[in-house]
Amino acid sequence: MPDTISSTISPEGSLEILSQHEVARLHDTSRAGLHDLLRCCALAVLNCGSPTDDGLALMEAYADFDIEVVPQDRGIRLKLTNAPAEAFVDGKMIRGIREHLSAVLRDIVYVYNEIQGHQRFDLTTGEGTTNAVFHILRKAGTLKPGVDPSLVVCWGGHSISREEYDYSKDVGYHLGLRELDICTGCGPGAMKGPMKGANVAHAKQRRHQGRYLGVSEPGIIAAEAPNPIVNELVVMPDIEKRLEAFVRLGHGIIVFPGGVGTAEEILYLLGILLHPDNADMALPVIFTGPASSAAYFERIDEFLAYTLGDEARRRYRIIIDDPTEVARTMRKGIDEVAEYRRARQDAFYFNWRLTIDRPFQAPFEPTHEAMAGLTLDRDQPVHELAANLRRAFSGIVAGNVKEHGIRAIKANGPFRLSAEPELMARLDELLDSFVAQGRMKLSGEYEPCYTLG
Amino acid sequence: MPDTISSTISPEGSLEILSQHEVARLHDTSRAGLHDLLRCCALAVLNCGSPTDDGLALMEAYADFDIEVVPQDRGIRLKLTNAPAEAFVDGKMIRGIREHLSAVLRDIVYVYNEIQGHQRFDLTTGEGTTNAVFHILRKAGTLKPGVDPSLVVCWGGHSISREEYDYSKDVGYHLGLRELDICTGCGPGAMKGPMKGANVAHAKQRRHQGRYLGVSEPGIIAAEAPNPIVNELVVMPDIEKRLEAFVRLGHGIIVFPGGVGTAEEILYLLGILLHPDNADMALPVIFTGPASSAAYFERIDEFLAYTLGDEARRRYRIIIDDPTEVARTMRKGIDEVAEYRRARQDAFYFNWRLTIDRPFQAPFEPTHEAMAGLTLDRDQPVHELAANLRRAFSGIVAGNVKEHGIRAIKANGPFRLSAEPELMARLDELLDSFVAQGRMKLSGEYEPCYTLG
Amino acid sequence: MPDTISSTISPEGSLEILSQHEVARLHDTSRAGLHDLLRCCALAVLNCGSPTDDGLALMEAYADFDIEVVPQDRGIRLKLTNAPAEAFVDGKMIRGIREHLSAVLRDIVYVYNEIQGHQRFDLTTGEGTTNAVFHILRKAGTLKPGVDPSLVVCWGGHSISREEYDYSKDVGYHLGLRELDICTGCGPGAMKGPMKGANVAHAKQRRHQGRYLGVSEPGIIAAEAPNPIVNELVVMPDIEKRLEAFVRLGHGIIVFPGGVGTAEEILYLLGILLHPDNADMALPVIFTGPASSAAYFERIDEFLAYTLGDEARRRYRIIIDDPTEVARTMRKGIDEVAEYRRARQDAFYFNWRLTIDRPFQAPFEPTHEAMAGLTLDRDQPVHELAANLRRAFSGIVAGNVKEHGIRAIKANGPFRLSAEPELMARLDELLDSFVAQGRMKLSGEYEPCYTLG
Amino acid sequence: MPDTISSTISPEGSLEILSQHEVARLHDTSRAGLHDLLRCCALAVLNCGSPTDDGLALMEAYADFDIEVVPQDRGIRLKLTNAPAEAFVDGKMIRGIREHLSAVLRDIVYVYNEIQGHQRFDLTTGEGTTNAVFHILRKAGTLKPGVDPSLVVCWGGHSISREEYDYSKDVGYHLGLRELDICTGCGPGAMKGPMKGANVAHAKQRRHQGRYLGVSEPGIIAAEAPNPIVNELVVMPDIEKRLEAFVRLGHGIIVFPGGVGTAEEILYLLGILLHPDNADMALPVIFTGPASSAAYFERIDEFLAYTLGDEARRRYRIIIDDPTEVARTMRKGIDEVAEYRRARQDAFYFNWRLTIDRPFQAPFEPTHEAMAGLTLDRDQPVHELAANLRRAFSGIVAGNVKEHGIRAIKANGPFRLSAEPELMARLDELLDSFVAQGRMKLSGEYEPCYTLG
Repeated sequence: MPDTISSTISPEGSLEILSQHEVARLHDTSRAGLHDLLRCCALAVLNCGSPTDDGLALMEAYADFDIEVVPQDRGIRLKLTNAPAEAFVDGKMIRGIREHLSAVLRDIVYVYNEIQGHQRFDLTTGEGTTNAVFHILRKAGTLKPGVDPSLVVCWGGHSISREEYDYSKDVGYHLGLRELDICTGCGPGAMKGPMKGANVAHAKQRRHQGRYLGVSEPGIIAAEAPNPIVNELVVMPDIEKRLEAFVRLGHGIIVFPGGVGTAEEILYLLGILLHPDNADMALPVIFTGPASSAAYFERIDEFLAYTLGDEARRRYRIIIDDPTEVARTMRKGIDEVAEYRRARQDAFYFNWRLTIDRPFQAPFEPTHEAMAGLTLDRDQPVHELAANLRRAFSGIVAGNVKEHGIRAIKANGPFRLSAEPELMARLDELLDSFVAQGRMKLSGEYEPCYTLG
Repeated sequence: MPDTISSTISPEGSLEILSQHEVARLHDTSRAGLHDLLRCCALAVLNCGSPTDDGLALMEAYADFDIEVVPQDRGIRLKLTNAPAEAFVDGKMIRGIREHLSAVLRDIVYVYNEIQGHQRFDLTTGEGTTNAVFHILRKAGTLKPGVDPSLVVCWGGHSISREEYDYSKDVGYHLGLRELDICTGCGPGAMKGPMKGANVAHAKQRRHQGRYLGVSEPGIIAAEAPNPIVNELVVMPDIEKRLEAFVRLGHGIIVFPGGVGTAEEILYLLGILLHPDNADMALPVIFTGPASSAAYFERIDEFLAYTLGDEARRRYRIIIDDPTEVARTMRKGIDEVAEYRRARQDAFYFNWRLTIDRPFQAPFEPTHEAMAGLTLDRDQPVHELAANLRRAFSGIVAGNVKEHGIRAIKANGPFRLSAEPELMARLDELLDSFVAQGRMKLSGEYEPCYTLG
Repeated sequence: MPDTISSTISPEGSLEILSQHEVARLHDTSRAGLHDLLRCCALAVLNCGSPTDDGLALMEAYADFDIEVVPQDRGIRLKLTNAPAEAFVDGKMIRGIREHLSAVLRDIVYVYNEIQGHQRFDLTTGEGTTNAVFHILRKAGTLKPGVDPSLVVCWGGHSISREEYDYSKDVGYHLGLRELDICTGCGPGAMKGPMKGANVAHAKQRRHQGRYLGVSEPGIIAAEAPNPIVNELVVMPDIEKRLEAFVRLGHGIIVFPGGVGTAEEILYLLGILLHPDNADMALPVIFTGPASSAAYFERIDEFLAYTLGDEARRRYRIIIDDPTEVARTMRKGIDEVAEYRRARQDAFYFNWRLTIDRPFQAPFEPTHEAMAGLTLDRDQPVHELAANLRRAFSGIVAGNVKEHGIRAIKANGPFRLSAEPELMARLDELLDSFVAQGRMKLSGEYEPCYTLG
Repeated sequence: MPDTISSTISPEGSLEILSQHEVARLHDTSRAGLHDLLRCCALAVLNCGSPTDDGLALMEAYADFDIEVVPQDRGIRLKLTNAPAEAFVDGKMIRGIREHLSAVLRDIVYVYNEIQGHQRFDLTTGEGTTNAVFHILRKAGTLKPGVDPSLVVCWGGHSISREEYDYSKDVGYHLGLRELDICTGCGPGAMKGPMKGANVAHAKQRRHQGRYLGVSEPGIIAAEAPNPIVNELVVMPDIEKRLEAFVRLGHGIIVFPGGVGTAEEILYLLGILLHPDNADMALPVIFTGPASSAAYFERIDEFLAYTLGDEARRRYRIIIDDPTEVARTMRKGIDEVAEYRRARQDAFYFNWRLTIDRPFQAPFEPTHEAMAGLTLDRDQPVHELAANLRRAFSGIVAGNVKEHGIRAIKANGPFRLSAEPELMARLDELLDSFVAQGRMKLSGEYEPCYTLG
């Protein structure tokens, strides 16, 4: 039995000024429908010290953990029962974790009340969806006017080798030395390394306002809990809005080695950038890793060339084993983004101009049926194939680490994916390489949640 | 013809991060229905240097003034045509005025879209109305968590003597020395004096975060334009919400000599404080003026004693010609408010616990018919009489200084008020004394907008 | 008997971190030789609310006032006995006054120990003197690196008409609107008006870091106590170092109407600017007043033309009754100063490059003998005549308002000044006009402290 | 040949406002006598990325490095020739390093001019020496009034195992979580670990003003260059003043495993704490390391018990392998220090009350003769033995890592130390254990710089 502490805390950084009506709704909603989700995400945030990618196991370890919203005349308090002791120092919750907990409540319950349960946002349209993404990010305080572009989105695996982790830290360090900030999906591995590196560099450059922005999602937060260094946390309602948040917030994107989740992100990104409307969009994209990871990117590169064509290759640059060059290139690219936006009087804090086609926005529910029905052949426009491949990878991520996905696989066996033979072979090879390189899971033997054929 | 300047400016302090949808709505709403209102209020704010209480005359003087919301990818800009030159310094708008202009746009157009045009706020109920007041104030940034009570609401005439003005300044000075902040209804006279005095005292005490909060209303802003010292401006949708904002925001209230507007505020305040639910509510109220104004408060005091009874007298204290004593008493009273709220875990920034009966919230439209229909006799509960007297005074204010009121009087002659004989006599006497003391108008001969009988 | 309070306070803004040795020296020096001076200056600062220009009378009114430095292990405290009650609010000293008191102690005692009683600064040389001025100003925190030029020195009488005072306030207001700061000699009249005006303008422009710098001198501080708005106070050891501080700190100079003190400052300034080394020095100088003061500047202008020649006229501009034009011209002039210094890599915070001839630096002790010995004729280089005229005016100021000067006149009768006939006549005329215009004293009949002939 | 860059930079954080006289002296002194010292220390600071403890080798690697003070009208600039490239990012010096460089210049040249070359500080007396230490620290800005005690001095080896380093980081992390700050001697190993740990913890606790204070010394800085995380750097003139700075600044002391340098510090500390005047002085002292280092502290503990007696043992606590307990104990101890000082009105920022006997202050020059002459027997008062043992260890440190020490050993062979037989045996054993554990040198085989007998 892990150590636990029970305590009542005040929100910090969010939800500090609430109307009595909002307090009541928060109280009600957090007790009714959303209680399980809130409890699960809160636990993930509190458990940040012990990485695990098995949300189910975490819930079992803290089976008697609970969270309750306590209404008061001047706002709310949060009552925690049997919370992981490591979130506290001498009985007082670490401030970063307290902020994360408030962010989780804000994004799970409050945003639900304001956006999802609200006819004002028509989430079946592209405009309505983007509007919702904007409102969630603004409510979270991540949109800052008057600040020059500096946000580098870092993608990559949460289960990477020590060497790759150190490399990602080194890249973060060199980005930080160049006054750049980091945005990742939270969690360990390539999501944590760049932040830790940048934190040290910002200290050396006396950059006190460094941003370490984590963008998570309820299904993934248990497996990828935010490190408390994250000083801005947003929990987007689903994968697709999370991906949209990344590409509208970020001024540049770096991809480290990873597994299917990373492949999903790459396909999402290229699918969008290949849209004709985005042909001249300034957005630097770099794939990078240590020398030992060179082969990994070669494979990805070949797979992309085969599936999406040479056009796709022009949107990214591969730099191997050179953190300084990565940082220098990114700095230059982001300076160009600043010029690009200034020339068009675009906002720096949100990329309104980027076109995101509907298939990239619509949530994909990876049921066995939906996975089996994906069309994976080259007889379709490039960006549609990208969208379908993205969905296939997304389903595999769910089967690997998300609670509901794991349950579904336990119940019905692996997902079945079918594709045209050549593509099938290449996909098989790619996925096998992820397994072989141990990129599928934090610990233990990997048992595939899919079959191809 | 006054000097004018045409210019395009960016919002400041409000409306800096907007969604494209919000930009579009702002643009549309500001062009359509609300354009006249926006134009009128914007002009008032820009004209802050030259006090006038004739909104109509102001609009005529700047007949070709216009304001337009220009949508841009990164937000909005404001295009001003033929704006009063005094709002600018060497072609650049004074920052305080720029903030006020943004506040006006926010409160007139944006709040309209979000609150008035929205089924979520049921303005026919007390709860819905209070909720709307809260949302408007929060959107304006006036609700600050973690700050000790310090906000003194100052009421009084905009047309007072130099001696009374200097006295109000002196009171503000002694409040400021005691680390208290000022909230008024904007405009000249007793609304400006305390702010100027407090500003000097805050400088002497090195209090850099002094608050000078102005709470206005579209119908009154032309006559009572905010002095640019006001560093937080809110334009509430109507008189009743403005009054509610005062009593829910303020931690203490000081009343200086004034005219009908001031009498309206006094009756509003006492009508609420006499509600049984508020019997033990901590809220210090002081009536004060220089020695020469002593008679004024005697009259008011007698009128209140006659109409509302001795109970009402216990809720306020009259202090004549002693600014230090006023400030010391207020400081002590506000310390008690802090204790009171702390003991009940109430918020410091919004007095949720105060009960405001529906008659004090429901907007009163002072048509000739409505004015004639007011029941002004002592055969009704004290707080209902207070509510009706409040309405009567409110109507007279409209007839004196509000554009639509002035138009109505021009068209149909003075309002007719009837009351029981004794009350009528006392009311007559009170109003006559206001006229005699020149408390009805900033300049020129006063021509009553009402008849009694 | 005025109200008094006895209290012990901690220093604020200065002298917060002292070595035990410094504490001991402060304690000793403040008890021994410098005690009277400290007591006198401290009383002036505490008495800021009631302007008087009779230092002697002030000392008599508070005959039992005393100040004592109390050594503690962690620094010092200041024990005040029978201090003017108005320096306190409900028993707590106003923070601005507390800062001034600390500044006085720092400059009277600490600076004495560090600079005057120290062989390291050779005050008999120009370089040593300038070095001392620099050290005193740096110790006081008035030299701020990385800040653009913005400091306007305002000179003028402490005994001016209400109209002239309001005008100086108006000029300060328009300077403040243009993001300019104010430096004066402290005291009432033309030294207070510009600060008050700028304070309001800075509030409107939301300029929270506005500077109100007062540069005083032990002999003058009783007559010209700093208004607590002054947020940086320096007490220079003597008149000449005070004048040097003004011209090395200021980025532009405005002269309002005044009396002999103002004439002294004008002659000092022009004497320096006429030095060949300073021929191309950028330093805007404006003489200004309301329409009713036009004659005043005509007289000054004529006197300067006669004594210093047309060359002198080219160094200043006279602007009558146009505060906006004054402010606009000064803003432009100061922008040129910024360019001038940037081009030469000069510091913004201290004008090292300005040449100040020895006669302008050497302290002048206005004994009856020294005054009688001044050579006042045009048979000498222009800048020497300027130096001698400056001394003559300086002596008259001492006879008017300084404790030791008043005593000397009481004892020995008026100073005798002799000059060549034409110059004598013009000087007589000028001084008479000051008397006639009531520019010699704050209150009461003026009895000349000099005779010409 | 390492990569180098030549560049001219402005000071940052120090020396920004200088008189022309100071500029000239800085220029002169830095060219003449102090140039070599300045050059050597500057190079150490610039070389912070590559740990080495061979100052001689460093100077050889960058044989053509030079630094020059360039006087300008507005202050100074620093011209660097062939400086280590790693101090720069894309041609711009890392800000932390720029601050360190300015600190080095301030402490080497400026402080030399102000303190060492100045009769005002009588360095032959205890009072004069402490006064000098105070002035150097104040000039460096390390004395902050109004801040609660929080500074933990961490001592320990620069050449420790990975496990010990990680442990020191972990301790720093838990100190940082408890809002404590770190002060070390700069350099790698136990001096860097706690800072890195605290930096992460401060990020998690959102403690933006975390202090990482490095106190170095010219002879040691090459071997123990400050990591740029150090955000306050002071270079004390000699070892003894550096040690005095540690014990007067720190509110608690933690000792990690180390070599002779650490032993020197322990003997210094206990020698002082055993002085009768310090009998009740509140100052928590903890010796700590991972489980694998337990034996190390047992040996130290035995040696201390034998040489200084059981009394000495009561002044420290040994905690093995429990970072949380270390941090918790230190937090509690420092809270007691706060109470202790508050009760006595002592300053928090400088421990004036601590008595330091003259033998602990007088600089010890470890010549062969002086080393041979040390009296190492128990026939003397405990604190004198402590002082002599401290000197012996100090000499060995010099022989190991300081430029002049290394040269002396190269020229004259090892130092000879003699002691009474039993003490000699125990000393031999202790030193051998340091060698065996590799605690004497960062890299390479260790060749003892001493012989016992």
